[in-house]
Amino acid sequence: MAMDHAAAEGDHLAAERAAARFDVEAMKVAWAGSRHAVDVADRMARLVASDPVFRKDNRTMLSRKDLFKDTLRKAAHAWKRIVELRLTEEEASLLRQYVDQPGYVDLHWGMFVPAIKGQGTEEQQKKWLPLAYKFQIIGCYAQTELGHGSNVQGLETTATFDPKTDGFVIHSPTLTSSKWWPGGLGKASTHAVVYARLITEGKDYGIHGFIVQLRSLEDHSPLPGVTLGDIGGKFGSGAYNSMDNGVLRFDHVRIPRDQMLMRLSQVTREGKYVNSDVPKQLLYGTMVYVRQSIVADASKALSRAVCIAVRYSAIRKQFGSQDGGPETQVLNYRTQQSRLFPLLASAYAFRFVGDWLNWLYTDVTQKLEAKDYSTLQEAHACTAGLKAVTTSATADAIEECRKLCGGHGYLNSSGLPELFAVYVPACTYEGDNVVLLLQVARILMKTVSQLTSGKQPVGTMAYMGKVQHLMQSKCAVKTAEDWLNPAFIQEAFEARALRMAVNCAQNIGQAANQEEGFYERSPDLLESAVAHIQLIIVTK
Amino acid sequence: MAMDHAAAEGDHLAAERAAARFDVEAMKVAWAGSRHAVDVADRMARLVASDPVFRKDNRTMLSRKDLFKDTLRKAAHAWKRIVELRLTEEEASLLRQYVDQPGYVDLHWGMFVPAIKGQGTEEQQKKWLPLAYKFQIIGCYAQTELGHGSNVQGLETTATFDPKTDGFVIHSPTLTSSKWWPGGLGKASTHAVVYARLITEGKDYGIHGFIVQLRSLEDHSPLPGVTLGDIGGKFGSGAYNSMDNGVLRFDHVRIPRDQMLMRLSQVTREGKYVNSDVPKQLLYGTMVYVRQSIVADASKALSRAVCIAVRYSAIRKQFGSQDGGPETQVLNYRTQQSRLFPLLASAYAFRFVGDWLNWLYTDVTQKLEAKDYSTLQEAHACTAGLKAVTTSATADAIEECRKLCGGHGYLNSSGLPELFAVYVPACTYEGDNVVLLLQVARILMKTVSQLTSGKQPVGTMAYMGKVQHLMQSKCAVKTAEDWLNPAFIQEAFEARALRMAVNCAQNIGQAANQEEGFYERSPDLLESAVAHIQLIIVTK
Repeated sequence: MAMDHAAAEGDHLAAERAAARFDVEAMKVAWAGSRHAVDVADRMARLVASDPVFRKDNRTMLSRKDLFKDTLRKAAHAWKRIVELRLTEEEASLLRQYVDQPGYVDLHWGMFVPAIKGQGTEEQQKKWLPLAYKFQIIGCYAQTELGHGSNVQGLETTATFDPKTDGFVIHSPTLTSSKWWPGGLGKASTHAVVYARLITEGKDYGIHGFIVQLRSLEDHSPLPGVTLGDIGGKFGSGAYNSMDNGVLRFDHVRIPRDQMLMRLSQVTREGKYVNSDVPKQLLYGTMVYVRQSIVADASKALSRAVCIAVRYSAIRKQFGSQDGGPETQVLNYRTQQSRLFPLLASAYAFRFVGDWLNWLYTDVTQKLEAKDYSTLQEAHACTAGLKAVTTSATADAIEECRKLCGGHGYLNSSGLPELFAVYVPACTYEGDNVVLLLQVARILMKTVSQLTSGKQPVGTMAYMGKVQHLMQSKCAVKTAEDWLNPAFIQEAFEARALRMAVNCAQNIGQAANQEEGFYERSPDLLESAVAHIQLIIVTK
Repeated sequence: MAMDHAAAEGDHLAAERAAARFDVEAMKVAWAGSRHAVDVADRMARLVASDPVFRKDNRTMLSRKDLFKDTLRKAAHAWKRIVELRLTEEEASLLRQYVDQPGYVDLHWGMFVPAIKGQGTEEQQKKWLPLAYKFQIIGCYAQTELGHGSNVQGLETTATFDPKTDGFVIHSPTLTSSKWWPGGLGKASTHAVVYARLITEGKDYGIHGFIVQLRSLEDHSPLPGVTLGDIGGKFGSGAYNSMDNGVLRFDHVRIPRDQMLMRLSQVTREGKYVNSDVPKQLLYGTMVYVRQSIVADASKALSRAVCIAVRYSAIRKQFGSQDGGPETQVLNYRTQQSRLFPLLASAYAFRFVGDWLNWLYTDVTQKLEAKDYSTLQEAHACTAGLKAVTTSATADAIEECRKLCGGHGYLNSSGLPELFAVYVPACTYEGDNVVLLLQVARILMKTVSQLTSGKQPVGTMAYMGKVQHLMQSKCAVKTAEDWLNPAFIQEAFEARALRMAVNCAQNIGQAANQEEGFYERSPDLLESAVAHIQLIIVTK
């Protein structure tokens, strides 16, 4: 919004930058986390930008087939560079981030390997991880089915133990049991961790993970009984069309018993189902980890969109010239500011709440290892809710940034259509946002119901213990400047969240029964959960 | 939400349909406008669906080049069928609607021909229209430039009259003056109506339209001095990528004087600028017409999205099974209903406000012909505001419908990603929604300022005359049922809109000057304009 000489001569970006009233270098370090992080990021960004194999300018112009081939080429080249340059794990992960093209390797490293690490026995890890690390096998994560996604307990694929052959029979009994969506499944993967209902001795023990080979290691053709395919085009010109999201059906496919992931529970040679002494709560740790990384990604995606829209707004001039002089920079319009600046602020807020969530993950992990489960539920509500609120806000914000660039935002060359199309599935994967917020609401309702019994809520729910005060407090703000006082803001958010939760609880209490009440009030419960999570974002 | 036998057996759609508590056939007729309209629409829809040339199933899988060729093929085939079957204008227009693939013909018929009809003299119409009707020339509408869109007065292309050659010199003096976006320009058009600043006798007379030939009628190559190109990929897999949105630059291109569209003003042989006796207000009539058709299209797009999301919600089952019985249809969740049903209601509301706007257009046209301009400003506010509110709401609603279909909405095969990508530019073209709403707000502020002088507001602003009552009235609603009383709803919307407008006017009054106040309060003014338009939608 600077109006000096540089602006008059047309270099609006330089003028705006010169007008910054904070230390840009210090902010860079704060954003990245450390000087070291800035340096590594810069180095990896330059490595990608200077390598013609990683070019991005033609991504939205390729046919689906050529785009997929391009993704394979980039993944192989990235692997080659990682090995050649002996990159650290941190560097390799950043390099892949800057290549920035969804592909099968994301699932191989992001889901297949962690699933074996988290749910496999030491023996299983020793057998499978070296194969995965050397890319001698390519793995994906086959959980979601045509009929069930967020409702994992509803999955229909079966893994029936057959004591005669000492193995499991993997089968797709219905059309809706077809695995549907897994990335890397359609074309690339040789193996998958498949989630299926474990059935032994005639009893259904619910969903468990199994390592299943899908394609021949000789000629990459599907193994007998395995039907595979790509599920087709997706939102956007490029976006997730670089990914071979797939469909998979099993017709009585046999695997050896030791390909059940057996860290938490086992099936014995005789077919007995046995729990190990490893606590099942450890699985929550993985979920917290995955979701905290989604929150971190939200701020990255949002900051890219906001950066494009802010720069555009500084350069674009429109209207406002009354005497033939220069027009007004779009950035100077209050209507543009009132839409754009809250998104800019959100990018920072999500960045720092992501850091805090990272701390929470460490904290939860340490407590789990010490078999202390006291904060697990609250931590689960936190990560589930933050995942939902930040991804929804980010998807909406990218689209808003696109609109803030006027017609130009609709061109792929603005970068925004692709950023939106590639980001928006985050609202659905790893738990649909509505489903997650209802889980948060359940925990909120439980906490409210325990307030009268004197049980003190913990962690991010501690404020609910101030129920007496917050139900009656009046906003202390007298002047506009008062809103700059964090204590006033915090109390306003606390009072709002608590009152919404108490109100929901009272309304549910009037229903015939708890479940009916929860059902009838679910739209209010969603809003209540969002208010609680927004309080966390504001205060962390 | 029916729970009968059919549902138990899995045919949820049949069960839901059987449970309808209104006459479906009567609703069909009400929606289409008449029995005749239903019949024609059915006939044209079948004609398109049964013709393999018009297939749509591969649209999102084609490369950009093949998609463009496919569009050319469909446009030519549609023309052939229209001629062969001697379709009426109504039938031909519906057939093109059902082909439903943006292409150069949309601009030829929708903008080029109407511009000549509206702004050309009788002589010009006699010369150019037969060529256009027989497709001996293909026309587009070259208004928007790289630097200016909604701000038409800021366009920079010049048309300088040269008395020596009795013609105009069309020129692009700056980079930002490049024509940018016009559909049909990149590849197809031979001619364009070009908007440029008319300069004669050294004076700039502002923006006027000129018919300019761009490409050779022999070999389709650009004429000397004309630089043409395609501006590249756009949002979505198919969507507007079937359209050759283009860039156009002129290097002193000469056209004869009689290619200026001269119905409203002329340049004489000597270079004198003369206004004709045709009132300029007639141009507003065209704008009202185009915008009322955009509102009608909003309800069409929205109804398609809602239809997909409602059907999906009826078929998709998830959670809710406590005893191994069937799961709950997603449609039965309050959270789904509270998001989906308002969109369903909006589709109907936009449908019927579109009808009313069509009446308004007829009314305005008749008044203009009688040189009565008394309602023009109010009608302009109405159409501009309704264009903005319905297109923004529809774009958001299509995206919401996509999310309501969970992960499946992200697949192109759901139809929703493409529907969104092809619809969303409606928020920008024919006037950016923010710009339009600020125009509405200006008229609202003017109306408020005249209230004290006793000038009675007209048409959709008549309610503002009840200022004394509405500023003090209390909502009469006592029970939930009261909200079904249209009079209560209307008064609530009236009171809201008026109070927001009066509040804005008061705040503006406190500023140093009117312009400064309008600038500072522009975010509130936007909301005030939306409230006024929502009242119109609720009551018409």
